[in-house]
Amino acid sequence: MLPAKTIERLSQYRRTLLQILAKGKLHIFSHELAEFHNITAVQVRRDIMLIGYSGQLRKGYNVKKLIDAIGKTIDSKNDQNIAIIGIGNLGKAITSYFNGKRSNLKIIAAFDRNPAKVGKVISGVKCYHINDLVDIIKKENISIGIITTPPDNVIDIAEKLTMSGIKGILNFTTTPIKISQNICLEEYDMITSIEKLTYFIKDKNP
Amino acid sequence: MLPAKTIERLSQYRRTLLQILAKGKLHIFSHELAEFHNITAVQVRRDIMLIGYSGQLRKGYNVKKLIDAIGKTIDSKNDQNIAIIGIGNLGKAITSYFNGKRSNLKIIAAFDRNPAKVGKVISGVKCYHINDLVDIIKKENISIGIITTPPDNVIDIAEKLTMSGIKGILNFTTTPIKISQNICLEEYDMITSIEKLTYFIKDKNP
Repeated sequence: MLPAKTIERLSQYRRTLLQILAKGKLHIFSHELAEFHNITAVQVRRDIMLIGYSGQLRKGYNVKKLIDAIGKTIDSKNDQNIAIIGIGNLGKAITSYFNGKRSNLKIIAAFDRNPAKVGKVISGVKCYHINDLVDIIKKENISIGIITTPPDNVIDIAEKLTMSGIKGILNFTTTPIKISQNICLEEYDMITSIEKLTYFIKDKNP
Repeated sequence: MLPAKTIERLSQYRRTLLQILAKGKLHIFSHELAEFHNITAVQVRRDIMLIGYSGQLRKGYNVKKLIDAIGKTIDSKNDQNIAIIGIGNLGKAITSYFNGKRSNLKIIAAFDRNPAKVGKVISGVKCYHINDLVDIIKKENISIGIITTPPDNVIDIAEKLTMSGIKGILNFTTTPIKISQNICLEEYDMITSIEKLTYFIKDKNP
């Protein structure tokens, strides 16, 4: 199992490599890839060595093969079904952005308590009532839940997700959650990012 | 200047303290605050010591005073004006969530190239054409730019933001940007978070 930071970088390299490939570039040197990501070439080479791939001395990495090698390491062999809990602006943004971009990760269900949304197809995904969350997650074999609800509902939703047997949760709300240790948890809070940025620019303001 | 990780935690503590205060709780112990954030009480006490605040032996921290003390450390003394570049679903989510919640941080302008949006007020914020970005940022004294456009426009937008004299950039797209060292940069990429989560749940799937 590779460290979380390495996985993050591999995911980001792949994104860059896909863009580069789309522009018709077939080979790339570690220092070029490093420059895209504001890191050192040594770091890039170390990460790529970890997945057992290597470049050619005067040509660099084969872009296509490197994309495949990263996929073999970081992608799941099976399809992973994802649910969005809370299909407001943020939920819609993630769903529209995500679907169609990854073959083996797919957002297949949304949950909301707004009667105007339940039963509809939103951003290409069927929306269910939040009360049906446990049943649908089991029935549809959903392994990842992304929480994009208002912050006050989060504790209740985390409990429901735990009962459903979910394997991973991404919490995009501003309320931290506590779950059992055998569920993987990622939390990201935009407001904290903005407050952090403000702190570091403070002394640049008179 | 405090470390970035400390600022992140202080911002998160404040969010929790505000919720707690709203429920009428006036004092909190470090171990209680720690439990909310899945960290140790020692960490909480260390962070709060760094901002020069201390609790009372048998009562813990005064919630209101601690909120003020955190604000004095992490908030800017001056109002900070923020612009959203790209007012699609993600831009709208951030704008609606943010405005009204912080007194001294305010999203006051949006930029887009969609003619159906330019000139309108969206999520309470006036939308300008992206071509006017440099002028408006200077005129309105905007210090932070949040990029929520599709990934292909990002390089061009980062250049425009640099020209405008912006002090901080938050990049929520999947394209990493390069900017001059006197602009603070935070980047967050949701797809990487989802891919990372998938990697770590992989061996929980047959």
